[in-house]
Amino acid sequence: MRLSFIPQEDKFFELFTQAGNNLVKIADALVDLLENWTNIEAKVQLITDLERAGDAVTHEIAALLHKSFVTPFDREDISILAHTLDDVADFVHAAADAMFIYRITRPTERSQELAAVIREAAGEIAKALPLLRRRKDLTKVFASCVELNRLENKADRISRQALGELFEDTKDTAYIIKWREIYEHMEIATDRAEDVANVLEGIALKNA
Amino acid sequence: MRLSFIPQEDKFFELFTQAGNNLVKIADALVDLLENWTNIEAKVQLITDLERAGDAVTHEIAALLHKSFVTPFDREDISILAHTLDDVADFVHAAADAMFIYRITRPTERSQELAAVIREAAGEIAKALPLLRRRKDLTKVFASCVELNRLENKADRISRQALGELFEDTKDTAYIIKWREIYEHMEIATDRAEDVANVLEGIALKNA
Amino acid sequence: MRLSFIPQEDKFFELFTQAGNNLVKIADALVDLLENWTNIEAKVQLITDLERAGDAVTHEIAALLHKSFVTPFDREDISILAHTLDDVADFVHAAADAMFIYRITRPTERSQELAAVIREAAGEIAKALPLLRRRKDLTKVFASCVELNRLENKADRISRQALGELFEDTKDTAYIIKWREIYEHMEIATDRAEDVANVLEGIALKNA
Repeated sequence: MRLSFIPQEDKFFELFTQAGNNLVKIADALVDLLENWTNIEAKVQLITDLERAGDAVTHEIAALLHKSFVTPFDREDISILAHTLDDVADFVHAAADAMFIYRITRPTERSQELAAVIREAAGEIAKALPLLRRRKDLTKVFASCVELNRLENKADRISRQALGELFEDTKDTAYIIKWREIYEHMEIATDRAEDVANVLEGIALKNA
Repeated sequence: MRLSFIPQEDKFFELFTQAGNNLVKIADALVDLLENWTNIEAKVQLITDLERAGDAVTHEIAALLHKSFVTPFDREDISILAHTLDDVADFVHAAADAMFIYRITRPTERSQELAAVIREAAGEIAKALPLLRRRKDLTKVFASCVELNRLENKADRISRQALGELFEDTKDTAYIIKWREIYEHMEIATDRAEDVANVLEGIALKNA
Repeated sequence: MRLSFIPQEDKFFELFTQAGNNLVKIADALVDLLENWTNIEAKVQLITDLERAGDAVTHEIAALLHKSFVTPFDREDISILAHTLDDVADFVHAAADAMFIYRITRPTERSQELAAVIREAAGEIAKALPLLRRRKDLTKVFASCVELNRLENKADRISRQALGELFEDTKDTAYIIKWREIYEHMEIATDRAEDVANVLEGIALKNA
């Protein structure tokens, strides 16, 4: 039985569950930053710390791959899944970090909407990852894939509106350049969440 | 015989042929938008509709993968090919959409040149995809790969000229920011067309 | 013995060694451009020539793949490795090219720092590639992977500082737009160097 309780395999699932939970935490921290715009430096620092915690999990997965003879899925899929989860956290961090670097004075409504979508996507990923543990649950990830696709489309729509408004609302091009970058990072975070969905779909296709 | 007339396999080739034809339509629509700059909203809407039609084909391919026991190529290659074709359409759409969102008042010559290159690349892809159907035709995709590479280089050259001119021609930075984004989307569309070439090359390498 | 002296296999290793050495040359040329800001056009032309030499090696690897029945690693890994090495050179070239296109009048300190990091990353890649030749050396690439990861983080830190300073130092948005693009290309070059590390890691995982 390929997905039985081999302890090493269990460890992979634990690490992916950790990575999913960490993604929820970093998305929560982004929502908090944008909804309660105070103590910016400390909140961005928290996001940076969570992003590093995510990095550590990614490296633990890679290290476990190095020393495992048996893996629950293809080695490459495990590696790509770990890196793609990491990418989501990276772009959330990049968005928060840009707000700090560019000394943004207050969040826009559109950035709050995008943070909410990212939080939804993170929750969906955290819900899907534990499904990898049991072969009979694998096909349930397809529902999360559809939802992550929908969220990416939603983020895309919001960021397009945001960009259009930016040029209409102000002539301050430094402001425009800064917010375009922040919106872009947030939108890419949801793109990467959709990439996670694609990897999950691939794993389910091959193993269900 | 692996590439024989198994109906399910045939369906994959039909869908890829559809995806290729759809790419030609969306590229034609982009050329029409830029060459006949009228009814912008309706023309951008047509491009949006074609992009969604492409999405639907991508999802049909994914659904067919889910339920097929036998596939003409590796499942992952089929999945990546579908997603990369989708990416080309996405960036054509992103370019057209940016022109609409940013209320562009008239196209530049460089954008017309880039649209022509995208149209050529789409035609090349539509020509290459039906070659997947017969094992003996597989190596013929290499010629299309070379051509798609050439077109990507051409698009790169045009967009670099376009960017240089942009800063020389105007001090209006809002205009510069908008056109840089449009050029970037168009250039990435040709990058993704080259990625399609790389996937096709990989499939041919493994199966010819 | 899979990694024995089969001449065709040897040729792969030679080409990868060439690609690595070419990367060092192009990084050296970038450092020279930024540290000795004279004869800009000739120096950018040299970088363009080196990027094309790298392209030629990539195509030689692809051609060798086409005609080889036996390959030292998975065909796809060889193909991805070649393309990722190419990407590093492409972004170095894109950075240098942008300086030329945008008629940059003098380099910034941050761009000099980034060039130094790129040079280090290129050196690390050139050191790691020959390790592919012997199965017993494969696990030694992990040390280079860690180092390439560290360099990517360093480049990220520098480019973030650079971007923050850009908005504080000047109100000239054309200047800001130009340098943001140059910094971005340089930072992506180190991202791609980290991607090279990831491919190398994958090859080592599968073959060590």
